[in-house]
Amino acid sequence: MNHLLSIGDLDRAGIERIITQAARFAEVSDREIKKVPALRGRMVLNLFYEASTRTRSSFELAAKRLSADVVNFAASGSSVEKGESLKDTVLTLSAHKPDAIVLRTPWAGAAELVSRWCSAAIVNAGDGQHEHPTQALLDVYTLQQRLGGLDGASIWIVGDVTHSRVARSNIIAFQEMGAKVTVAGPPTLIPRRIEELGCEVRFTLDELDGADVVYALRMQRERMTETWVPSLREYASWYQINGRRLGPRQVLMHPGPVNRGVELSGDVVDSPQAVITAQVEAGVVVRMAVLYELLAGAKEPDPVARRQTAPQPA
Amino acid sequence: MNHLLSIGDLDRAGIERIITQAARFAEVSDREIKKVPALRGRMVLNLFYEASTRTRSSFELAAKRLSADVVNFAASGSSVEKGESLKDTVLTLSAHKPDAIVLRTPWAGAAELVSRWCSAAIVNAGDGQHEHPTQALLDVYTLQQRLGGLDGASIWIVGDVTHSRVARSNIIAFQEMGAKVTVAGPPTLIPRRIEELGCEVRFTLDELDGADVVYALRMQRERMTETWVPSLREYASWYQINGRRLGPRQVLMHPGPVNRGVELSGDVVDSPQAVITAQVEAGVVVRMAVLYELLAGAKEPDPVARRQTAPQPA
Amino acid sequence: MNHLLSIGDLDRAGIERIITQAARFAEVSDREIKKVPALRGRMVLNLFYEASTRTRSSFELAAKRLSADVVNFAASGSSVEKGESLKDTVLTLSAHKPDAIVLRTPWAGAAELVSRWCSAAIVNAGDGQHEHPTQALLDVYTLQQRLGGLDGASIWIVGDVTHSRVARSNIIAFQEMGAKVTVAGPPTLIPRRIEELGCEVRFTLDELDGADVVYALRMQRERMTETWVPSLREYASWYQINGRRLGPRQVLMHPGPVNRGVELSGDVVDSPQAVITAQVEAGVVVRMAVLYELLAGAKEPDPVARRQTAPQPA
Repeated sequence: MNHLLSIGDLDRAGIERIITQAARFAEVSDREIKKVPALRGRMVLNLFYEASTRTRSSFELAAKRLSADVVNFAASGSSVEKGESLKDTVLTLSAHKPDAIVLRTPWAGAAELVSRWCSAAIVNAGDGQHEHPTQALLDVYTLQQRLGGLDGASIWIVGDVTHSRVARSNIIAFQEMGAKVTVAGPPTLIPRRIEELGCEVRFTLDELDGADVVYALRMQRERMTETWVPSLREYASWYQINGRRLGPRQVLMHPGPVNRGVELSGDVVDSPQAVITAQVEAGVVVRMAVLYELLAGAKEPDPVARRQTAPQPA
Repeated sequence: MNHLLSIGDLDRAGIERIITQAARFAEVSDREIKKVPALRGRMVLNLFYEASTRTRSSFELAAKRLSADVVNFAASGSSVEKGESLKDTVLTLSAHKPDAIVLRTPWAGAAELVSRWCSAAIVNAGDGQHEHPTQALLDVYTLQQRLGGLDGASIWIVGDVTHSRVARSNIIAFQEMGAKVTVAGPPTLIPRRIEELGCEVRFTLDELDGADVVYALRMQRERMTETWVPSLREYASWYQINGRRLGPRQVLMHPGPVNRGVELSGDVVDSPQAVITAQVEAGVVVRMAVLYELLAGAKEPDPVARRQTAPQPA
Repeated sequence: MNHLLSIGDLDRAGIERIITQAARFAEVSDREIKKVPALRGRMVLNLFYEASTRTRSSFELAAKRLSADVVNFAASGSSVEKGESLKDTVLTLSAHKPDAIVLRTPWAGAAELVSRWCSAAIVNAGDGQHEHPTQALLDVYTLQQRLGGLDGASIWIVGDVTHSRVARSNIIAFQEMGAKVTVAGPPTLIPRRIEELGCEVRFTLDELDGADVVYALRMQRERMTETWVPSLREYASWYQINGRRLGPRQVLMHPGPVNRGVELSGDVVDSPQAVITAQVEAGVVVRMAVLYELLAGAKEPDPVARRQTAPQPA
């Protein structure tokens, strides 16, 4: 694996390899010293054209826990504001010889383009409404930890599927791991021909009690003009996951940040069924596993072995 | 000590312990290599909801000099702009398992709330007009270095006490260390019942020559509408500390950044009585001591011992 | 050398010493582990009053590759917005005892002023339209690598010379290294009496084929009101370097970021004659050499020797 551009780059064995490595890194996260020297001396460049507390910080921490150096580039406040093209920015930054570039952009397909322009390993951290593969991996990891496995599980993805890169990557990953996926939401927010990805479609939550896992998507307030839904209040009345709709044995997921009172009621966010915090924790270890696989691969035999203490002079 | 939320968390012995440790770290700051490995592998997260060159950089340097890793979060450009609540932001970030969170917010009491939501050590780096305990510690440290001790010293705090978290924390700390505190300023900028903290109140500087230490507060231009003072010029004519008012043996302090020509005249800022730069220097070593106390505590016997060189192969 | 404020601080021998050291660091950039421990424990402070992806990141990487710690200060979002003076900001930050301050400001002469106010080594990373000495050094390095040497080379600097700190520093450095410099552009964009620096002046590109090197300057769109040029289109028709004007053996340089279609046509940017990416690569190693010279100097005998592996217990 040279890049992680799309979740489709990984087959089931590839996903499982990363998940297994992530579980090993999770053990390190419970140590007092949470770092391993696996990527000492390597440079990871975070190139973010969109603000994202969660994703950027998660990659930054993942890299630092592997002892890599991190340089952050926010597109605002940079040459980008002077009108520099994505290509010229990438060529410039890749002249600095980073080992990996973690890229978040609003443009579908940008990660794939960038991977052709430079020799660094590219990790797609979200390209427009297209893909967000590390989110899919961390969601698979979280479910694996909670359910033991995804084979045969019924997963409902509820909400604004049309504008969601998370939905797209997760449908593919969940199915690859053996789950049965249903997407549900108002007809205006479900893309036509989404069934071609292999999932089922519902426009109501009437059959939601058949789900093992309910994955609520974020309603992006800025998009919720009346073009899409009459109002957030009306959306919530039909599609909000709340204590009335969520069964006691169903697992609740959300990619964050949550709009309390819109796609989720406050009580379910804080309920024991919600694994939302576990998803965030999974983010760091899964991204450690991705960076490790891309930059060290098979070379380093055991990244989490405790470092041997150097002999002290007597 | 699990957190540093309020200066009131520390009794005199606690303040002295931190001051003593800070003095040891100050020796390290004069070495060519200014780092000690005391917190290697630990993660300190700076979560700042308000811009602050001084405080943020001071904590960042403190953490780096202890060999900790630092991740900075500015609230702008993050999920916060998408309307995420403080609680959800903190839950997200604490899922990354930082060892400490340094928190600056405009909301009184926020640090205390956050300390209930996560297991990291919380350091209050300013919560609205409420408290700024590390500022109080660095001011005590600075005076200890300059005067040898605070017992019996007369300290005047001059200016906008109403809007100042520095004033509130410093009144408490200076008194705990044995000083006698007077606050002075226009009646509109002195909170009612401030005497209940144990200090005296004056509305003129007529008796300022009785002070050993004059601590001028910053006038926040953005607040200085006519609600509070008729004009900055009028404020300065009554309360500016300048060469005419400041006696040759008085020590001058200010939390920075200074408005030259408003609360201080330019000449006193640059005079030998001013310890403003010493306060900034103190900021790094005091914050090192706070982070060290919270994260390593009694475990590490001597954080500033020079690292032994590993034996070299013959 | 205590500071790098102006390219004029360096004579030919000084430039050559830095270029030679940079070439040694370039070897490190091709290793899997791109770091050397030369500046371990040192602090480099990036103080940027203007946005700059390239320069800031280049210095940050340079410092990190030397194992120094880096603290970044963007002037926006800091005390500067509260009206703090440059002097007070610098005094504050220098109380943190950085070993070096890398300074970018819009004010000519600021770096020189700052060097009087604090004991850190100051590196001028651009002060208004005045100087940008590390740009000149990396350009000399790039040409040295490409041509073997600058003695007798004819270098044309084309475009907006008036507003360009790059032009000013490069004219001096190229001539110091033995090249013959011609500046060319519309009369409104060539400063009067620029010949006093020793270069020739042309207002057309008619004789451009005599150049060994064509160095195109960036047209700053924000300045290109009709005061300076009638329109960018008209500028391009007269002064754009494109496939028609650039000869097959001429080397093409540009400080970036490029305005494709204005000062350069897209085809020449991507042509083999362009060394624009090599300039960016040179930026990191030249800045490593500058920081190393300022902070370690003659003390450290061989910064790029591979670190000896500590003996492992049997």
